[in-house]
Amino acid sequence: MTPDEAYAALLAHVRRISALEQTAGLLAWDQETMMPPRGGAQRAEQMGALAAALQDLRADPRQEDWLAAAEGLADPAPDVRADLREIRRELTRAARLPAGLPEALARERSASHQIWAQARNDRDFAAFAPALARVLALRREEAQATAEPGQDHYDALLDRYEPGARAAELEPVFARLRAGLAELLDRIRGSSVRIPRFSGAFPETAQMALAHQLAGDCGYDFAAGRLDRAVHPFSSGSGQDVRITTRVDPADPSECVFATLHETGHALYEQGIAPELAWRPAGGHASMGVHESQSRFWENHVGRSAAFAPFLRDRMKIAFGGLGLRSAEALFAAVNAVTPGYIRTAADEAQYDLHILMRFDLERALLSGDLPVEDLEIAWADRFEADFGRRPPHAGLGCLQDVHWSEGLIGYFPTYTLGNLNAAALAAALRRDLPDFDEALRRGDLAPPLAWLREKIHRHGRVKPAGELLEAACGAPVDERPLLAHLEAKFGAIYGF
Amino acid sequence: MTPDEAYAALLAHVRRISALEQTAGLLAWDQETMMPPRGGAQRAEQMGALAAALQDLRADPRQEDWLAAAEGLADPAPDVRADLREIRRELTRAARLPAGLPEALARERSASHQIWAQARNDRDFAAFAPALARVLALRREEAQATAEPGQDHYDALLDRYEPGARAAELEPVFARLRAGLAELLDRIRGSSVRIPRFSGAFPETAQMALAHQLAGDCGYDFAAGRLDRAVHPFSSGSGQDVRITTRVDPADPSECVFATLHETGHALYEQGIAPELAWRPAGGHASMGVHESQSRFWENHVGRSAAFAPFLRDRMKIAFGGLGLRSAEALFAAVNAVTPGYIRTAADEAQYDLHILMRFDLERALLSGDLPVEDLEIAWADRFEADFGRRPPHAGLGCLQDVHWSEGLIGYFPTYTLGNLNAAALAAALRRDLPDFDEALRRGDLAPPLAWLREKIHRHGRVKPAGELLEAACGAPVDERPLLAHLEAKFGAIYGF
Repeated sequence: MTPDEAYAALLAHVRRISALEQTAGLLAWDQETMMPPRGGAQRAEQMGALAAALQDLRADPRQEDWLAAAEGLADPAPDVRADLREIRRELTRAARLPAGLPEALARERSASHQIWAQARNDRDFAAFAPALARVLALRREEAQATAEPGQDHYDALLDRYEPGARAAELEPVFARLRAGLAELLDRIRGSSVRIPRFSGAFPETAQMALAHQLAGDCGYDFAAGRLDRAVHPFSSGSGQDVRITTRVDPADPSECVFATLHETGHALYEQGIAPELAWRPAGGHASMGVHESQSRFWENHVGRSAAFAPFLRDRMKIAFGGLGLRSAEALFAAVNAVTPGYIRTAADEAQYDLHILMRFDLERALLSGDLPVEDLEIAWADRFEADFGRRPPHAGLGCLQDVHWSEGLIGYFPTYTLGNLNAAALAAALRRDLPDFDEALRRGDLAPPLAWLREKIHRHGRVKPAGELLEAACGAPVDERPLLAHLEAKFGAIYGF
Repeated sequence: MTPDEAYAALLAHVRRISALEQTAGLLAWDQETMMPPRGGAQRAEQMGALAAALQDLRADPRQEDWLAAAEGLADPAPDVRADLREIRRELTRAARLPAGLPEALARERSASHQIWAQARNDRDFAAFAPALARVLALRREEAQATAEPGQDHYDALLDRYEPGARAAELEPVFARLRAGLAELLDRIRGSSVRIPRFSGAFPETAQMALAHQLAGDCGYDFAAGRLDRAVHPFSSGSGQDVRITTRVDPADPSECVFATLHETGHALYEQGIAPELAWRPAGGHASMGVHESQSRFWENHVGRSAAFAPFLRDRMKIAFGGLGLRSAEALFAAVNAVTPGYIRTAADEAQYDLHILMRFDLERALLSGDLPVEDLEIAWADRFEADFGRRPPHAGLGCLQDVHWSEGLIGYFPTYTLGNLNAAALAAALRRDLPDFDEALRRGDLAPPLAWLREKIHRHGRVKPAGELLEAACGAPVDERPLLAHLEAKFGAIYGF
């Protein structure tokens, strides 16, 4: 077999894997949007059968032979090199995983998830702790088995979501971010400015119609996607079928608006990957931190910006008749209000990353064993009090609030803050390249920023590593400064400092 | 391995197959109801990958060992016997299929389908004939390879949809039915009665709300299903997730009403199969002719009956305000109007089976080669003229109208008429067992017929052969007499003879 033939055989195999992964994604989408209430048990069997079929394909020993031959390609193009790099990465990792570990993890995750849901409902951390300890032990085993020689075990897990990232390199950036956010929050708390609130009637159908309109305004292609309601909004799919979901709160239209813009951002990235990369490892996303930067860009740097507020207010006034907000400035303030709370997913831009940074520290301590699982509830409350100045009244508003750890997802949380850092750095660079960006936002003309992101980020897929891609787009490595500058400008304008 | 262990291993394997088949069903449902316009190419890849995974499972040689061992079970219960019988049937057939034939058929069907769609659009039979000849040749090969010794080749194909059925046994029943229908049509054509028509406004949302209400009236369980729009209505799924679709014609609300009742009938059957048969071959449907009897029962013997008309008229008046029909009798006549036409799917009860009977004769002649493919257009027009008294103006209204033959589906059409025969026989038996059936229909109380069908048909799944199941329910083998009696009573009342 020539290297070319081997590369073709490898891509055909990967294509079959991707097609089944997309199918699993559709089953998950359907489960959250369309599936009837009693369909759950049957759906779990379908997912299990699909996982088994995928496992058979992923374990196919011919892949190693094909890859070894394809690695002999003379002078491959960058996208072909990326294909080979990604396949090598997956095969190496799969070969290192102890037999039985993926099955054990799948079983334990599923059990742990159910125990967590009940415990959160009961606000009872002690009921969840043993399950968390079991799932953590398996993740520790996974990290140990898959780490490169000398690699930090946390980094071995982080690498799944943010290839090449290292906790030791994130730490100083995150520390400076934390200090800057603390200072910002102090100033906001010291302000006497009162933030106006929405009032009026916000019927579900009007909210969904507005959501469709806004996604379209951003450039989301409805011929290659759709928008539905879900309890926890998400986006899913790739290529010519990238679906988004949003939620509706009848008392507060901003939930729907910003969930829509967030998921639209994710979807625009997927819709913008170069078609010639479709079905290939090089056609994936660069990293979760890059994916999240796209959602945050549209949510916070477009949707929650002062410049976009006049256009957004017009859209909302047409949708609902009235909003109870007298001006675009009032809308801008209302959608950026900083309020005390305990829940990460409901946090404003000024506090969101503090939620993440504490999770980053706590999960590293959990994984290393420095923090015994049984001490998590207290450690969480202590750290929350230090950062936010208030103590969660119970574990449901504390360490039981997120689903991630219940499934043993360690190393995922930091990608949220990376997303915010990246989004701010990209917005600053975009503003340098497009000096009349704010003017376009005021008109609701979102084509220029989309074209810029398509060119700088989307089309590249996973051809370049995330760091390289971002540095090329922003002109420098990403650090905390663009995000802090953005937050200081925004909240200074609103809170008068 | 003991017979019990072998039987358990076999069922676990079949369960995995069923779970992937259900997944393919969901992809198909999504394609017709939810998928964005540009999602088709990607969906085809997903379907292909799933088909390949299914093929791997179906070809697993361990099945033969497990089955041979399980057939040693001492005195198995009827449902276990049915499991073994069905698995034996599938393995025997699979073993007889020449290597490469399923793939060749899949390829040819897909190509032929596209050529057919274009040809139908162009009303150009000559453009389709070569593709039809190729797909027929493959079906002939399939029939030859899979037929039992001495079995008619047509019966070998028919058996896929109607296990155990034989064309030679259907022929005399169909001949008497055809004669009876010809006589009935003559009398209808001789009548001077004028049938009233719907008039008014029938908005889409009101039609869909009515459809949901009617499906619920029939006992369809929305906690284990859902109802959406589709261009060509269908039902899909099984167990706790059985979905239905309907269509909306803004000018004629009866399209939506009767498509809904039809698909609800299919879904009630699936929802009524005994839960202990779930995931097992014994938990399938008895035959396509039994499945179709359930849809036709709710569509024609409930929905289009004189007794149900008052309740239906109330429902429709509430939904639409007015219907332009002065009485329940007028509604009964309007939804049973006999009108000239060329299209099977739009045919009324008096003419529908004549469409089927001609297809039954033509497809047998095509398969045997007695009718050369290139003569089909003329043969169709001649036969249509003989049975209906008018000649199709072009092939689009003639032999190109149905999708079935384009995919080489030979032996499927007769199950539609079997469905009508079975539905009429079941309705007659039900009326004997439930003397106040008509009274219940007038009240819109559909629980008694559903309970009767659940007991006599649904719960049994595929444990008994279709003929045995129907004979036990009806007290005698099904023939043409109940259907002709039903049609004569109905059309006599409407057309005054």
